[in-house]
Amino acid sequence: MTGHFLSFEGIDGSGKSTQARMLADHLRQAGRDVVLTREPGGSAGAEEIRRLVLEGDPDKWSAETEILLFTAARRDHLEKTVWPALEDGKVVICDRFADSTRLYQGITRGDLRGVVDRLHDQMIACEPDLTFVIDMDPAMGLARAKGRQGTEERFEDFGLGLQERMREGFLNLAHEFADRCVVVDGARAIDAVAADVARITMDRLSPDAASA
Amino acid sequence: MTGHFLSFEGIDGSGKSTQARMLADHLRQAGRDVVLTREPGGSAGAEEIRRLVLEGDPDKWSAETEILLFTAARRDHLEKTVWPALEDGKVVICDRFADSTRLYQGITRGDLRGVVDRLHDQMIACEPDLTFVIDMDPAMGLARAKGRQGTEERFEDFGLGLQERMREGFLNLAHEFADRCVVVDGARAIDAVAADVARITMDRLSPDAASA
Repeated sequence: MTGHFLSFEGIDGSGKSTQARMLADHLRQAGRDVVLTREPGGSAGAEEIRRLVLEGDPDKWSAETEILLFTAARRDHLEKTVWPALEDGKVVICDRFADSTRLYQGITRGDLRGVVDRLHDQMIACEPDLTFVIDMDPAMGLARAKGRQGTEERFEDFGLGLQERMREGFLNLAHEFADRCVVVDGARAIDAVAADVARITMDRLSPDAASA
Repeated sequence: MTGHFLSFEGIDGSGKSTQARMLADHLRQAGRDVVLTREPGGSAGAEEIRRLVLEGDPDKWSAETEILLFTAARRDHLEKTVWPALEDGKVVICDRFADSTRLYQGITRGDLRGVVDRLHDQMIACEPDLTFVIDMDPAMGLARAKGRQGTEERFEDFGLGLQERMREGFLNLAHEFADRCVVVDGARAIDAVAADVARITMDRLSPDAASA
């Protein structure tokens, strides 16, 4: 039996991490073996690379070097966490995956989308079976992200203009990868969003998942 | 004025680091502005990546992840150290460069040479003007490497069989990149090797270097 690979994407404050956790809880209660993970990070080595990139001076690395480091982290995460779990038939739920790299790098340096894609094709060559894009008004997302304690994403510092471009970018990616992406309205009550996510997951996964 | 980019390659114990240093001294005495650097490492960020790769469990990273990390380190080294120095008209002498990656990765996992090459073409796209391959009998090189204090290269632990394959690999690379590679017999007195290296450098560099 092979498992299922799900990812959550969306702007900061969209609630994607909360939704990823709630889906994991839901599937566990349904008897599924679930691995909840995140990027960048998700394995011991990838977490070390994450610290290397996200701590310290934001201008420490060029965009090109950062893409290489994130690709290295993703490769380690896949090898050590995601692929073994999928081989064991588990459901892997990942808070951010390659779509975030496509978006974040491409949005500040549009010419880099090709670099990201070629590195992905060559070194990763793996997509989720299902990706939830949690959509939200950027002003609402930003307010929620800033109100949160312990936030560490550098990108949140860039303000509303960037959040607006990111929302548009995620919606464009959902269109580009329409076979695996589902856009969910995140501006509703958390339980309502979670119910949608759970229903879509059950519908989309293979029969053995739907009957679990 | 643009500078000159020189690299030294060879098996462990071949004396390449000593020869790189001696050439730097020679060129400085001839009035040239020289940057002596090394890989992996050579910039603050690349040194951090070097520590990430070379410290700890040797099996911590897969070959694919290691290639990505070394490519990230090389990109940072070029951006922060090599390219600025070349733009200032300096001579950059690098102890190991991309040939070492081509060799070390390809020798243990031959199928990875293509991965190394594609990553190099895409993210590095830079070759030295002149590469010295310091050639040496592997048994002699290994004895010299093991006799050295403070050696830290993991590859030295792999023994004579690997050293023999590496010597052959470096000679093959020198043949493959014959336009920039010069093989120098490293099994002679250090000063004799250094004199050869200095003479070849002066002959090969552009007129402004030869007259310096």
